[in-house]
Amino acid sequence: MTTNDGGLDGGAPDAGLLAAAEDLAAALRELIELSATTTAGAAEVASAAELVRSAAERIEGPRRPLTQLPPLDDRARGRRVFNPVSGSASGIAPPLRFVREDGVVSAVATLGAAYEGPPTFLHGGMSALFMDQVLGDTAAVNGLWGMTAHLELDYRGPVPLGRPLRFRGWVEETVGRKSVIAGSIALDDAPDRPLVEARGVFVMPRPEKLAAYFGSVTDVSGTHRPPGNAGDANAVERG
Amino acid sequence: MTTNDGGLDGGAPDAGLLAAAEDLAAALRELIELSATTTAGAAEVASAAELVRSAAERIEGPRRPLTQLPPLDDRARGRRVFNPVSGSASGIAPPLRFVREDGVVSAVATLGAAYEGPPTFLHGGMSALFMDQVLGDTAAVNGLWGMTAHLELDYRGPVPLGRPLRFRGWVEETVGRKSVIAGSIALDDAPDRPLVEARGVFVMPRPEKLAAYFGSVTDVSGTHRPPGNAGDANAVERG
Repeated sequence: MTTNDGGLDGGAPDAGLLAAAEDLAAALRELIELSATTTAGAAEVASAAELVRSAAERIEGPRRPLTQLPPLDDRARGRRVFNPVSGSASGIAPPLRFVREDGVVSAVATLGAAYEGPPTFLHGGMSALFMDQVLGDTAAVNGLWGMTAHLELDYRGPVPLGRPLRFRGWVEETVGRKSVIAGSIALDDAPDRPLVEARGVFVMPRPEKLAAYFGSVTDVSGTHRPPGNAGDANAVERG
Repeated sequence: MTTNDGGLDGGAPDAGLLAAAEDLAAALRELIELSATTTAGAAEVASAAELVRSAAERIEGPRRPLTQLPPLDDRARGRRVFNPVSGSASGIAPPLRFVREDGVVSAVATLGAAYEGPPTFLHGGMSALFMDQVLGDTAAVNGLWGMTAHLELDYRGPVPLGRPLRFRGWVEETVGRKSVIAGSIALDDAPDRPLVEARGVFVMPRPEKLAAYFGSVTDVSGTHRPPGNAGDANAVERG
């Protein structure tokens, strides 16, 4: 096994490694969705499990500690690749890909059985997970990075799987280190009839808390890298 | 490829298929965590992706429609195997395994890099996702199944990855079709110092809404199976 130093030289992360990591995540997402919907029998499912374990063997070995940011993260450009909502290399994330226009952050995604709660509908907690990210990224791209202090959601109607959904966030209010961000989930073809309405309060921790929470966080070169800037939003593109 | 009829005969789901599906999910979880922390290079990651695609080929073919419940679900015993929080066969779920004691539903789990938000901490939206399930299952095991109408969370402190966490839910109040459920996330060794406090309102839809939402949902035999009973909690065991 070779190892990768990613952004050690301070340049952009290794493009080949990023492409491979994104491809692995895409394959994982497809397999997770397939595993929840296949009508294959036990022998076929068992043989799929065996191949997944073989895949794991290919990348076993040294692991980065949690305090060391992934070399593929590119905070200057706002990319956290393993973010479980928007990370391009996360097998859990759909992933949501955000764009920004006139201060509003939005994403369109169609979700499958892997994200199901009540039969045929999105899990209510998945709506909350996705909205926390939408609202947090909305804060960050407006220069208001903070950690979630309060999140609340009103569910107006069930959110269907298998249809394009639109996720949106916008700034309601800012007071010092605190921002209040609102947002919604709607069908993409009926964006102004929200199925879920969300509101979040995000707070930039005071310097002493920031040091306590993230004092040991470094990039792969060992340079201290606490979060706290717009780059911690995940690759929000201008629309 | 053979196909599986699962609970078609009305009996318990196929034990061999269930074991294989749970094994596949366990392998997927391990690989997802590994993919976020490995220091392997591009060639190894690419070869892992190739093996995952081969795994998918093993279970490709006919898929159940979303309106047909998975044959592995056993609603009489409260098992929804692909639930993205507590499903034993979900590659996304940690999974949380709930126990019930004196009306309180709880689970203990240690989470890894796949669920990360700010560096070294659980994603705030993941706290919300997990609590929605804890609160919803608390409602259901108390005979109060309902869909999430409102969810709110107060974040008292960051939730660390890599340490055992305790998730809890209890009934606060019930009024007709509506229940108010509270809960918390804490370190397992300090369960009474909540890091996240949550409160959810769950509402059992009126019969006409239940018909509109779930009128086409069937089990694998074609029998109509709307949700709406304690069995829709996910395999909560008595402690």
